[in-house]
Amino acid sequence: MSARTRTFTWDDPLAMARAIEALSGLERMRQVIAGTLPPPPIAKLMDIRMVEASEGRVVFEATPSEFHYNPIGVVHGGFAATILDSAMGCAVHTMLPARVGYTTLELKVNFVRAVTLATGPVRAIGTVIHGGRTTALAEGRLESADGTLLAHATTTCLILR
Amino acid sequence: MSARTRTFTWDDPLAMARAIEALSGLERMRQVIAGTLPPPPIAKLMDIRMVEASEGRVVFEATPSEFHYNPIGVVHGGFAATILDSAMGCAVHTMLPARVGYTTLELKVNFVRAVTLATGPVRAIGTVIHGGRTTALAEGRLESADGTLLAHATTTCLILR
Amino acid sequence: MSARTRTFTWDDPLAMARAIEALSGLERMRQVIAGTLPPPPIAKLMDIRMVEASEGRVVFEATPSEFHYNPIGVVHGGFAATILDSAMGCAVHTMLPARVGYTTLELKVNFVRAVTLATGPVRAIGTVIHGGRTTALAEGRLESADGTLLAHATTTCLILR
Amino acid sequence: MSARTRTFTWDDPLAMARAIEALSGLERMRQVIAGTLPPPPIAKLMDIRMVEASEGRVVFEATPSEFHYNPIGVVHGGFAATILDSAMGCAVHTMLPARVGYTTLELKVNFVRAVTLATGPVRAIGTVIHGGRTTALAEGRLESADGTLLAHATTTCLILR
Repeated sequence: MSARTRTFTWDDPLAMARAIEALSGLERMRQVIAGTLPPPPIAKLMDIRMVEASEGRVVFEATPSEFHYNPIGVVHGGFAATILDSAMGCAVHTMLPARVGYTTLELKVNFVRAVTLATGPVRAIGTVIHGGRTTALAEGRLESADGTLLAHATTTCLILR
Repeated sequence: MSARTRTFTWDDPLAMARAIEALSGLERMRQVIAGTLPPPPIAKLMDIRMVEASEGRVVFEATPSEFHYNPIGVVHGGFAATILDSAMGCAVHTMLPARVGYTTLELKVNFVRAVTLATGPVRAIGTVIHGGRTTALAEGRLESADGTLLAHATTTCLILR
Repeated sequence: MSARTRTFTWDDPLAMARAIEALSGLERMRQVIAGTLPPPPIAKLMDIRMVEASEGRVVFEATPSEFHYNPIGVVHGGFAATILDSAMGCAVHTMLPARVGYTTLELKVNFVRAVTLATGPVRAIGTVIHGGRTTALAEGRLESADGTLLAHATTTCLILR
Repeated sequence: MSARTRTFTWDDPLAMARAIEALSGLERMRQVIAGTLPPPPIAKLMDIRMVEASEGRVVFEATPSEFHYNPIGVVHGGFAATILDSAMGCAVHTMLPARVGYTTLELKVNFVRAVTLATGPVRAIGTVIHGGRTTALAEGRLESADGTLLAHATTTCLILR
């Protein structure tokens, strides 16, 4: 078995959090997509990228890689969970003004098809189903390039006003 | 914002999957813990380690790091989802003989307390609640060193006989 | 506190199950809607009615009643869980031929708005998201007459071929 | 197919809610168990009874009946969902003082074994896993008389202070 290697970099997340505290959720997303704000460490770690953000909807893209693999020969469920959680949490965040935060209470993922290197690029689409004053509910779909459903998720967020 | 960097390595997961196909789930776990089999790529990526395995129960350990952070200043939910999914899936796998596989149908995670650098080392304990012929149900607890509950999860696996 | 009373009737569910074993899922649904097959006991108990069925989609209707109330002054979550489980399970069943069964592995419900007598008639719409050979995933929405979302659900079914 | 009939009674739930607003959650449970407060309508509808309540733990009992059946010849999943939601919600409520309420945000049920008339009496044990200031997480087990697991559930409640 030959060893493979990868090096990745990231920026100080707490410095970034302070730098952007006066921005609304949607303004932050747009700056990350435009490249004027760095992506968070988890996105660099997992090699996922936010590519679209509008009110109540965020899309992430990624290409499943060998370093995402589990011991049974397919991409680990944590990959789908992470990219879907990101897309859904960010979708909720797009609806919040500056200085209003949120926290994720729960996440459920249904794994529909195995993800492998052969799957190719995937998109995680997060959509807010209910945006309330105290809580929000979002849904996520992980799809291959031809729109085939790979995983589906829902999440409940608590809004911190 | 200063850039940070990390390099990690992993082994070919498909070569490994072939090498271990004659081992039961529990034998694989024990070899990974003993260091005679390499951990899977996802474990190297996320920096999580299996430390205990017995029939129906597996424990992973990890230390939350800055590279696990999300954009809102705490460890991303994908970290808890990945380590809990690993502990629970492996717990199910400990109950399976060689050449019987499984796939995870769904995963639900409840996030109880924020995880940060200050949390320190954490343990994810996966336990099989029901091990049937066709499906298995497992439960997971993510705890800090003093046993405080950080997250709780359940999962349904389909057994592939 | 004045006592209220209700009487309901139902038909032998096992006799019915035998009588319809040669029918596909969709044929059964259509006969129940047409009134040529009786609804199952749970539908009479909970006062819910199937009103639409097509391949991969089933709609139930009901009017929340005082006998659905919990001790904290609103309709119990079991009402939404039952009507959504019915709509989703039946949606999965519409895709199955005669003599192929299914069983529900798990159900998750997000309660979005309290349901009360003031809510008026509600509709539960079950839709299949993924209909595979071994498993199916369905989604459900509980809505008031004006389309307001009251609850959202997902479910995983195991197909028994 | 022969028709069967059942008549049940219940008490005005809103009058009851007003009558008990000065009681803590645990005081209410104890009065319901003692018979000095009537059970809520849903309990009479579904024929489930609270039998034990202590801080953070509540047990319901029931005997599955033909009127709980679904169209595929077993007890409908709504029965397990309702009794587990009751046991878990009440377990959360036992930890709340008078005039502090809660609402259930989400409920997930894993159905482990089919419930039928042959199952006999069942117990639903709800236990609080995390009781926080803003949210609570509880777990539920539905067991037959010999302790066999029939279903497992988790729920997130929002505390309304």
